[in-house]
Amino acid sequence: MAIRVDLLISLDGFATATDQTPDNPFSEDWSRLVDAYVATKTFQERVFKDTSGKGTTGIDNKYAKDYFENIGAEIMGAGKFGFHDHPDDPNWRGWWGEEPPFHYPVFVLTHNPRPSMKMAGGTIFHFINTSIDDALQQATDVAGQEDVRIGGGPTVVREYLKAGLVDRLHVAVAPILLGRGIRLWDDLRGLEKDYTVKSETAESGTIHLTFQR
Amino acid sequence: MAIRVDLLISLDGFATATDQTPDNPFSEDWSRLVDAYVATKTFQERVFKDTSGKGTTGIDNKYAKDYFENIGAEIMGAGKFGFHDHPDDPNWRGWWGEEPPFHYPVFVLTHNPRPSMKMAGGTIFHFINTSIDDALQQATDVAGQEDVRIGGGPTVVREYLKAGLVDRLHVAVAPILLGRGIRLWDDLRGLEKDYTVKSETAESGTIHLTFQR
Repeated sequence: MAIRVDLLISLDGFATATDQTPDNPFSEDWSRLVDAYVATKTFQERVFKDTSGKGTTGIDNKYAKDYFENIGAEIMGAGKFGFHDHPDDPNWRGWWGEEPPFHYPVFVLTHNPRPSMKMAGGTIFHFINTSIDDALQQATDVAGQEDVRIGGGPTVVREYLKAGLVDRLHVAVAPILLGRGIRLWDDLRGLEKDYTVKSETAESGTIHLTFQR
Repeated sequence: MAIRVDLLISLDGFATATDQTPDNPFSEDWSRLVDAYVATKTFQERVFKDTSGKGTTGIDNKYAKDYFENIGAEIMGAGKFGFHDHPDDPNWRGWWGEEPPFHYPVFVLTHNPRPSMKMAGGTIFHFINTSIDDALQQATDVAGQEDVRIGGGPTVVREYLKAGLVDRLHVAVAPILLGRGIRLWDDLRGLEKDYTVKSETAESGTIHLTFQR
């Protein structure tokens, strides 16, 4: 059982696009960040339900597969769930439709909790107003032998990294410069000292960095 | 003949250490940035004059060799020459001693020009208060068929990148987080569109990124 992070960032370190709007969550910047990941066979099958066999099968796909494996629960920030873009909508149910691609309990950190939402396919969203430690305890309890993902955004991930609570950090660095957004790496001086750092480059040009405890 | 940049940065994008002092130019941060490069056989021979054959001979060394090849002139900022750390010393002759490892003309951009300095081994420092275009013209004129290096620091490099004047940018990314310094990537959104971007990882963990026009 491990605490894991997987994030997509640009070469200049931006993990979140700022050109998203409620009407256009898959903005230009976001699309470019997730491009190589969406192109994988695994993503096509798992998220788009496209089982025709299309999609890349190289190094990006290896990480995409790994991304979905052995996760028992996830913690995400209110921004990733969409509360910042939909602050006044009591019926907002996340970006992912009625059958989100999680299939496990997801704990959403928010200052304005609401009742849990049971979605199709095994995903249940819990909205909690607790410390990151308490959230991790709750997620760990339901994950059992499986891993817990800290799903993002970058601000929440950084909090867990700074608290020394992450066992494995995988960052897919797209070979692009966004020049705007929220940076992952701010204020993490010396993080590498607690990890073994490895990297490899995929056919798409994406650099996969892994910090493993 | 090409305009080239080679820089060392951290994962979080810092190209310049800020813990340097006049007495300790090779600070902790700077040492960690240049570690893998200094360890190469090429650096040992070329800069330390150590011909005993020690030093690494892998991917880092390939780039180190390339670093020194076919350069006919260099442009650097006043900070890289050391004027910011030695503002009141009229006798300051750079960090590199009486025989600097350049062996070609170096144009130092400064608002306070002084007479040129002829050093041992073929290096001559020219101090010029001109636009980056004029500096490039002067450097190109003396470089002849050889390449011109934009030597740094990151602020000067960024100006040349933004002006579209760089043909090849090689960045050696050390797998460390410095959390302080001057960033290379600020304000360069979309830079990759003018280049083919390649990357490979060395044995040291250094990621070598090349932007080639």
